[in-house]
Amino acid sequence: MNKIYVVGIGPGGREQMTERAAEALKASDVIIGYTVYVDLVKDNFSDKEFLTTPMKRETERCVMAFEEAMKGKIVSMICSGDAGVYGMAGLMYEIGVRYPEVELEIVPGVTAALAGAAVLGAPLIHDFCLISLSDLLTPWEKIEARLLGASQADFVICLYNPSSKKRHDYLQKACDLMMRYKAPETVCGIVANIGREGEAGRVMSLKELRDTPVDMFTTVFVGNSQTKEINGKMVTPRGYRNV
Amino acid sequence: MNKIYVVGIGPGGREQMTERAAEALKASDVIIGYTVYVDLVKDNFSDKEFLTTPMKRETERCVMAFEEAMKGKIVSMICSGDAGVYGMAGLMYEIGVRYPEVELEIVPGVTAALAGAAVLGAPLIHDFCLISLSDLLTPWEKIEARLLGASQADFVICLYNPSSKKRHDYLQKACDLMMRYKAPETVCGIVANIGREGEAGRVMSLKELRDTPVDMFTTVFVGNSQTKEINGKMVTPRGYRNV
Repeated sequence: MNKIYVVGIGPGGREQMTERAAEALKASDVIIGYTVYVDLVKDNFSDKEFLTTPMKRETERCVMAFEEAMKGKIVSMICSGDAGVYGMAGLMYEIGVRYPEVELEIVPGVTAALAGAAVLGAPLIHDFCLISLSDLLTPWEKIEARLLGASQADFVICLYNPSSKKRHDYLQKACDLMMRYKAPETVCGIVANIGREGEAGRVMSLKELRDTPVDMFTTVFVGNSQTKEINGKMVTPRGYRNV
Repeated sequence: MNKIYVVGIGPGGREQMTERAAEALKASDVIIGYTVYVDLVKDNFSDKEFLTTPMKRETERCVMAFEEAMKGKIVSMICSGDAGVYGMAGLMYEIGVRYPEVELEIVPGVTAALAGAAVLGAPLIHDFCLISLSDLLTPWEKIEARLLGASQADFVICLYNPSSKKRHDYLQKACDLMMRYKAPETVCGIVANIGREGEAGRVMSLKELRDTPVDMFTTVFVGNSQTKEINGKMVTPRGYRNV
């Protein structure tokens, strides 16, 4: 059998992985991933063979996984958070067309939106959108349309990849777009280093968020019209009527 | 110390829980939840005290948790999936205002969107929205505006609570709204009984989805314009350029 598990390891270390994810890693001969993620699990699965590729070499990493599986090894391809949310699961299916002998099993994990929400309180209790501000593979016009559409329809919005060296003003641009429909007082929050050392959350208004510098390890949450701050936590009610 | 863990146990049994969630349950004296969820964990934590309330008695369940914590017990309030996604975390903060002595810790879990996506393949790789079709606490006009806004902006859409006895035609209505902007051929999928006995996924077009009966234990996925079917799996590419 040629088998690859595509495993979401959650936001941080071993304790944030599901039992099912840990079992997949245990059952594997080789674990493949981006260097930083491999380092997160290495100590707990030290009897395994580890293969890494740097960031932005995703296609190469997928091909590596299939080539190892074709040798008869059981492979785990690991991703931070969930492999199915801005992760490698899709690319694995696309490249997998060339390797019909290999069976893929996707093992879900806790994505940064969920883990970050737990740090801030309960911002994602009602309908929400995930939007990545990275325009590497998506035209900015598309991102802009999503920010506007989601704001107009009063979704809670969670932003991935809010910033990078080349895109230092993207969060500011996004806040300006959202403020066309969301009030400047809308309750927002940011979480840095989710599930890792230095994890820190902060609740603020949309207006403040606009002028807050964030890095690529930060996840951003923008409330809906009902979201409130309760004792420093960001809380979205279950609906639009009183509980 | 008066402490309550609000714990997302994932979609099914013990193996889909994170280690952190299992540790929270282990550390607790009493585990509180909706009867069905308590039954999912009872066997693995048989030394605990269990308290249950039926569905739709959420406020009562939260008050029960705080009252137990006030007795000095460590309490876990459990939710299926993630406690922060249409779960109890928000209501716990709202009711918690009356119990300032009690510390809340939210422990995230794998919500049905992520677990269902893993069954279907990789539908949520790019920007997506979660929308609940339940109009119990949300006016239908709001749900309608979200379906339209999300479709127009080409989000992948995941629908929770697509149907119930009283709302048997809501998915049909939702599909008609989405088809104002999404092509009838858009790749969609449904997953029943995620993470439980009888788990089953099926990939189909949006046009077919419109006429497919679903029950309240089904989660629905509607692709974006780039989503494709690859060997029976639902796969959304990472962006709008070739990989």
